[in-house]
Amino acid sequence: MSVFPPALLRLIRNLGNLPGIGEKTAARLALAILRWPEVRAKELAQSIDEVKEKIRFCSTCFSFTETDPCAICADPKRTTDAICVVEDPGDMMAIEKSSGFKGRYHVLHGVLSPMDGVGPDELKIKELLLRIKSGQVKEVILATSPTVAGEATAAYLAGLLQNEYIAVTRIACGVPMGTDLKYNDEMTLRRALEARTKA
Amino acid sequence: MSVFPPALLRLIRNLGNLPGIGEKTAARLALAILRWPEVRAKELAQSIDEVKEKIRFCSTCFSFTETDPCAICADPKRTTDAICVVEDPGDMMAIEKSSGFKGRYHVLHGVLSPMDGVGPDELKIKELLLRIKSGQVKEVILATSPTVAGEATAAYLAGLLQNEYIAVTRIACGVPMGTDLKYNDEMTLRRALEARTKA
Repeated sequence: MSVFPPALLRLIRNLGNLPGIGEKTAARLALAILRWPEVRAKELAQSIDEVKEKIRFCSTCFSFTETDPCAICADPKRTTDAICVVEDPGDMMAIEKSSGFKGRYHVLHGVLSPMDGVGPDELKIKELLLRIKSGQVKEVILATSPTVAGEATAAYLAGLLQNEYIAVTRIACGVPMGTDLKYNDEMTLRRALEARTKA
Repeated sequence: MSVFPPALLRLIRNLGNLPGIGEKTAARLALAILRWPEVRAKELAQSIDEVKEKIRFCSTCFSFTETDPCAICADPKRTTDAICVVEDPGDMMAIEKSSGFKGRYHVLHGVLSPMDGVGPDELKIKELLLRIKSGQVKEVILATSPTVAGEATAAYLAGLLQNEYIAVTRIACGVPMGTDLKYNDEMTLRRALEARTKA
């Protein structure tokens, strides 16, 4: 028999499903929630339900959004000349915070990873090509993370796009190799966007 | 205008209320929840609501419980001779996991901390004295953390109990000074209980 009441055990197990949260951290967080005022815990639980209810993929760029198209795709002040291709919405949000880019985005939802069964069909690549065929795009910036899989994905896309009459660029120096894009600081991301070079 | 949809911002803000979870970690956890299957997110949200609904303080030992008295206070196989006094339910759970103690507990819900306005009346000390007056208790083990405040609380309780006809002991070697009790490994906690000395 465990000394933890069943409801507390259940919460600890569920918190342990979060990435990077081990058993001890999950227990610490659960005990903190137990000490919270009722209203604060309710607010957290409701906001978890709310993101799952309200947030969908934008049918144009495939980032998370509550409206379709998303605020960025619907913004007439943003240029349609350039599409910045990222792995996931977190990367997109990191670039937005850097204020280094005023075009549109395209979220791949992953990187090529044959070992994990992720090929081109598992990513939003067909949809990217359709957007490019529409003819308004003049430049595609490949902003996948400078990891092995991210580099491979960028190289694959560069090959795929070489016969299109558009510029294909890759974010450049500033982002240290081997790190995940979204955890770089805003200055580094801005530099990486400014110093982009032809792919 | 932020690039995050409002529902996502709300979740990130709420996750950021958890101890040790900063803005970037909160964003990482929120994005993970977004990627979860609906049912897993719902399960987490429900378990947060459930702990707040179901879990109360035991009216005897003041640990968290779904029933009153709690499973430990209601267990006839556990001796009523000894009460182990701890700061919070997490400490109690850590001792339970070490299997080093088969008596009852008493949760103080904090330590004496005059700077923070926590005096004896803010802790469950009156209630501990009432339990001792009931006459069944032969030993009180002071198992507050070996921090400055925990040591001061143990010393205060030892003084308070010196005229009662009971043994008052303090957990001893094994628990490294300055650390929080609940984050010690089980062997260290067991040793600390076995090597307890008269206070």
